Amino acid sequence: MGHHHGGRVSAVRGAAPSSASRSALHGLLAPASIAILGASPDATKIRGLLLQVLRKNGYPGRIYPVNPNHARIDGLDCYPRVGAIGEPVELALLAIPAAEIPSALEACAHAGVRYAVIIASGFAEEGGPQSKLQQRVTEIARRFGIRICGPNTEGFHNEIANVSATFSPAIDHGRAAEPIIATSRRIGVVAQSGGIAFSLYHRGRAQGLSFSYVVSTGNEADLTLADFLDYMIGDDATDAVLLFLETVRDPQTFLTAAQRALDQRKPIIAVKVGRSSAGARAALSHTASMTGWDAAYEAVFKTFGIIVASDPDEAIAIAGAVTSAPVPAGARACVVTVSGGAGAWTADTLAACGLELPELSRGLQQTIRSLIPSYGSARNPVDITAQAVHTGAFLQTIELLSTCEEVDIIVVVASMARETRVPFDTAALGRVIKSSRKAILFYSYTLPSPIARKSMAEAGAVIFTGLASIGRAVHELARRGRVTQALPISSAAVPTKLRNRLREATGTLTEHQSKAILAQYGVRVAPGILVRNRDELDEAVRAIGFPLALKVQSPDLPHKTEVGGVRLNIADAATLRVAYEEVISALAVRAPCARLDGVRLEPMAPAGIEIIVGVIRDELFGPVLMVGAGGVATELFRDVAYRLAPVDRRGALELLASLRIKALLEGVRGAKRADFQALAHLIARISSLAVACRDRVREIELNPVLVHAAGKGCSVVDALIVLEPTLPPEA
Amino acid sequence: MGHHHGGRVSAVRGAAPSSASRSALHGLLAPASIAILGASPDATKIRGLLLQVLRKNGYPGRIYPVNPNHARIDGLDCYPRVGAIGEPVELALLAIPAAEIPSALEACAHAGVRYAVIIASGFAEEGGPQSKLQQRVTEIARRFGIRICGPNTEGFHNEIANVSATFSPAIDHGRAAEPIIATSRRIGVVAQSGGIAFSLYHRGRAQGLSFSYVVSTGNEADLTLADFLDYMIGDDATDAVLLFLETVRDPQTFLTAAQRALDQRKPIIAVKVGRSSAGARAALSHTASMTGWDAAYEAVFKTFGIIVASDPDEAIAIAGAVTSAPVPAGARACVVTVSGGAGAWTADTLAACGLELPELSRGLQQTIRSLIPSYGSARNPVDITAQAVHTGAFLQTIELLSTCEEVDIIVVVASMARETRVPFDTAALGRVIKSSRKAILFYSYTLPSPIARKSMAEAGAVIFTGLASIGRAVHELARRGRVTQALPISSAAVPTKLRNRLREATGTLTEHQSKAILAQYGVRVAPGILVRNRDELDEAVRAIGFPLALKVQSPDLPHKTEVGGVRLNIADAATLRVAYEEVISALAVRAPCARLDGVRLEPMAPAGIEIIVGVIRDELFGPVLMVGAGGVATELFRDVAYRLAPVDRRGALELLASLRIKALLEGVRGAKRADFQALAHLIARISSLAVACRDRVREIELNPVLVHAAGKGCSVVDALIVLEPTLPPEA
Repeated sequence: MGHHHGGRVSAVRGAAPSSASRSALHGLLAPASIAILGASPDATKIRGLLLQVLRKNGYPGRIYPVNPNHARIDGLDCYPRVGAIGEPVELALLAIPAAEIPSALEACAHAGVRYAVIIASGFAEEGGPQSKLQQRVTEIARRFGIRICGPNTEGFHNEIANVSATFSPAIDHGRAAEPIIATSRRIGVVAQSGGIAFSLYHRGRAQGLSFSYVVSTGNEADLTLADFLDYMIGDDATDAVLLFLETVRDPQTFLTAAQRALDQRKPIIAVKVGRSSAGARAALSHTASMTGWDAAYEAVFKTFGIIVASDPDEAIAIAGAVTSAPVPAGARACVVTVSGGAGAWTADTLAACGLELPELSRGLQQTIRSLIPSYGSARNPVDITAQAVHTGAFLQTIELLSTCEEVDIIVVVASMARETRVPFDTAALGRVIKSSRKAILFYSYTLPSPIARKSMAEAGAVIFTGLASIGRAVHELARRGRVTQALPISSAAVPTKLRNRLREATGTLTEHQSKAILAQYGVRVAPGILVRNRDELDEAVRAIGFPLALKVQSPDLPHKTEVGGVRLNIADAATLRVAYEEVISALAVRAPCARLDGVRLEPMAPAGIEIIVGVIRDELFGPVLMVGAGGVATELFRDVAYRLAPVDRRGALELLASLRIKALLEGVRGAKRADFQALAHLIARISSLAVACRDRVREIELNPVLVHAAGKGCSVVDALIVLEPTLPPEA
Repeated sequence: MGHHHGGRVSAVRGAAPSSASRSALHGLLAPASIAILGASPDATKIRGLLLQVLRKNGYPGRIYPVNPNHARIDGLDCYPRVGAIGEPVELALLAIPAAEIPSALEACAHAGVRYAVIIASGFAEEGGPQSKLQQRVTEIARRFGIRICGPNTEGFHNEIANVSATFSPAIDHGRAAEPIIATSRRIGVVAQSGGIAFSLYHRGRAQGLSFSYVVSTGNEADLTLADFLDYMIGDDATDAVLLFLETVRDPQTFLTAAQRALDQRKPIIAVKVGRSSAGARAALSHTASMTGWDAAYEAVFKTFGIIVASDPDEAIAIAGAVTSAPVPAGARACVVTVSGGAGAWTADTLAACGLELPELSRGLQQTIRSLIPSYGSARNPVDITAQAVHTGAFLQTIELLSTCEEVDIIVVVASMARETRVPFDTAALGRVIKSSRKAILFYSYTLPSPIARKSMAEAGAVIFTGLASIGRAVHELARRGRVTQALPISSAAVPTKLRNRLREATGTLTEHQSKAILAQYGVRVAPGILVRNRDELDEAVRAIGFPLALKVQSPDLPHKTEVGGVRLNIADAATLRVAYEEVISALAVRAPCARLDGVRLEPMAPAGIEIIVGVIRDELFGPVLMVGAGGVATELFRDVAYRLAPVDRRGALELLASLRIKALLEGVRGAKRADFQALAHLIARISSLAVACRDRVREIELNPVLVHAAGKGCSVVDALIVLEPTLPPEA
């Protein structure tokens, strides 16, 4: 613990150090020579397309078709086997049937091939014996050190070095002679679906975005999404990464890369599918992947500031914003429009996305009003009117805003449908955009014409066409300014006594046992006494006092209330005795087989705001912390937030700030502000315990925690710890 | 009351009966002849564009340019004045300066012109003296009966009769020789922004949608958005209406049209802007503070099943779905895809939009599996794989699904980017679509090529390109099947005594007064006694019994708790006396000027689920009902829903079903189901009271209402009625 990456990254067991794969991948993505196994002159087939796409897009290295049935293909010598090439081959593209893959891979390895892309399907995605075939691929990769992308992949495209090792029809530079490029900052795409990988590229390029690499990772028999992510985070030519994932197969590398992206402030935009049950089924059959628990992914994304997109246009818009605009200093936006209606709609959308739309100062309004017709508006939205387009007032207004101190973001709203011109002097606009430290974004409420795309791109402007997605993109852009580098978090040391206690217990602990463990780790819990029979009641009361709570303790009854095992607000000895007898006899009827430790007597906690604090150990990512509104609100309003454990107090406060119940904690209707510090301390402590003892602890839940007024702390009303079901081997 | 339209429509005062404007508008939108005042040969100007656009789009009637500076324009005789034309003119387009408009309008009226479209700006949108100018326009319309669209409008386009009375560059049929038309069912657009009106048309047409009329209503000096809506609802050529509005100026006509649309099941899709600038009201009740202008519109939209869109692409997608697909029988969707990733993403999106994605039956799966490669999937999503496109399995699968009994909606996911072909035999696809009673929708995860747009349109298919928006569109399409015709709702008669009581009171009533009124209208409230001094305590207790609640009653203190004016769970006479003295003396300090009626003693209500029921009278739409989660949840989680009052019990139950707190009412963690019937009755009753007495009642709020277990009713814990601040004139 106390590790640099907050114990999170190192906490996950797994693969080789990431730096190895990082340097290694350069040779895969920019190979000096490529052999195509299964190459064909028939371009209606995938096997034939590979050669065609590679050449059409100007691959500068040597290409060796391999196919025993041809002597030459498309003017190139064709070889019967990869071993017959007789020259060094860096990368092999395997477009041969699945059954032939293992022997072909071995032949490649023997011939000195360093990388392979397996296009063929028919592996783990089918299940059954085909999964074994994939295991053989993995073994060959490990044995010979040949690094493999796939199987069941559409390959990759390296836009920087003109390597199009794919059959995707979306990679089609031959036709679009002059691509539209609005920005030099590049997006890398890594996707567990070839269709999505290249469709994101296809959509992004149509809008003038730049790309570095597009990688379809397929079944990930060797190289995984995390390896490519890691490579792109370390790659200077990649300025943002777009991920499409169904699962993470290598959490260690993934978390390391995510941490590095956070440190470098390189944006990652992630789309995670498999959320719905139908979606999860698709994930199973498509890449033979188990879809992880959604909340664990949410925790990972939130912890590392990964931006989540739910729609392709939204993903592209966010990627476009972060690669074409500077990170603004704040969240104050101004809308400049030629259409009042479109301006109002844009302003509403930005406000709904959490941006501020301050009214401009009198002075600035006066200056702008002198440029525009009397029926325009200079408040915010600034409506220059369609008339003012012809006078140059549009650009003058944008320039005024770009140099004022009143806003951080300028959203320009115009119709760019005309096929002859755009409403700006684009050379002058280019100068304004280039010299501005503010984010200036352009939304066309009509569909932009090709000439508008082209001339705006020359000015360095991406034209956004989706209103919802530009709203989201501006929101995320504004948040980039607030992304903070993660600080190391150290877990408090675990006392030896506590460690031993955890090694000697198994399964579901009772509240009494759970609270004892919490107390041992420095969490304040009310003094409670376990009463095993009625004769012990009086002595316990002498220690506890009235009013008190009585709660049955059984490892078989974690939900005590539902079996009538809880009595609250007991005010005197007579009531206590009746309550005791009633609870015990009720249990004898309701849960006759439950093991009974006794009842716990505890002073009644003072009133407070109900919060739930829980940690669950995720199979992939380790302990995941959940904090939220307690009581019925937890399920009803789903007002909960997730982070990877551990968090420190600052992290806990950030997490609380994201909850709607924060308003209640801050005090509504004259109520006092709640004890945020005590709650944050408790959350940090619990998350630290879960990490420090993750070899034994599966779940911790405090529910509810009652948070009292500032300075008064909080009360852990109920607690539940679930340990591994069996004792550790050495115990 | 007891009126056919539930008292809602007739409840709003206002304009002329709608049928008049309905028939009247046909002559405006399809005039036999048009005069253009201000016509010019210069097509760089708006004045010049009008003539050009009208002719280019094939207007079949007579056109009369009017401009004293020209003898002929563009081959047509030009007239110095409208009176000089000497032939009947049905419509005049006025593209002359604002100041000249009134006299020109009068000249038009004298010349027998029936309709005018005022393009000029410089009226009420500028405020000040220009508002007076607009009033003159309104007066002229009323005096001469000439019906006016505008001023400050971009005009209109009638696609059926080729009347393009606009200068919008989006109406540009000259160039796109062969428009893409995927459906014959037409969309009408009515917008308070010309830019938005024609951009919706521009975006929709690019996707193959059909339009009837596009109307920009401008400042609405005479004809309003509601008039055009009403016309289009009654128009057989219009199958759905897209509205863009900032306000409704004629609520009577609007509500009548909305009711008729509901009766006819003609979809209305509305975009309401101006949310961010909603003005604050003087708010006494929570209902009032939470019910901004926005909520009144929400109430209207919900009441009449109007679909709300927040993004242009979403609006177009919904319009495209409802005009190109039949209304499905249910919400069971099946995704058919060529890309596993795109299929999973689509399935997730549909599930998030509330659609069901049932796994297909074994039999159906077996049949589909026989058509596709082994690495495909036949569950749902059905992944036929890219390979199966070439075998015809794609269409075969769609056809199988379109005739099975297992799903209601088929979402086909494919890449349609290729510029040479689409993945279907479109003639055969057209037959499947035509014969299917199910909704079959097509999503391309790449940007569709022009050939794909064209050939899919020939098959009768719109290609959707936005994933979030197709999800929303499918959701709304599925909901169309559940839209039910509104039944007449009658308010219970108001007893004369109650009516008199309301006529004799003003302003904020105390809880005691409010509850007395509720009781008089048949709402069950606990028997409470107003105690005016300490000597009356004992007698009150004899009637009420213990435990009881003590609540201060003052018209100046509607928020009693916040001034320490409430004591609960008083169990004996001694405590009561102390509580009384404390409350009275606390008030003397905290609110020394408050008028004090006394304290209300009331039996403690049994525990229950907290609900808030409120009604606020909206200036435009009359009484608006709000129901939601009570207590802190009201503001924290905003779990509230709105309807126009009155609602009947069925309406109240529907409203409750839309709340998240419904789950709690249904009983969680073994709790009993709450008394839905009693709550629904209470809601209906309160909404009916607000409507019946809307001349006096501004606000009613019951907060909280505690809902008990089924059969146990509910308790109105606190109540607040706010009346008009002054007595009615006759009183």
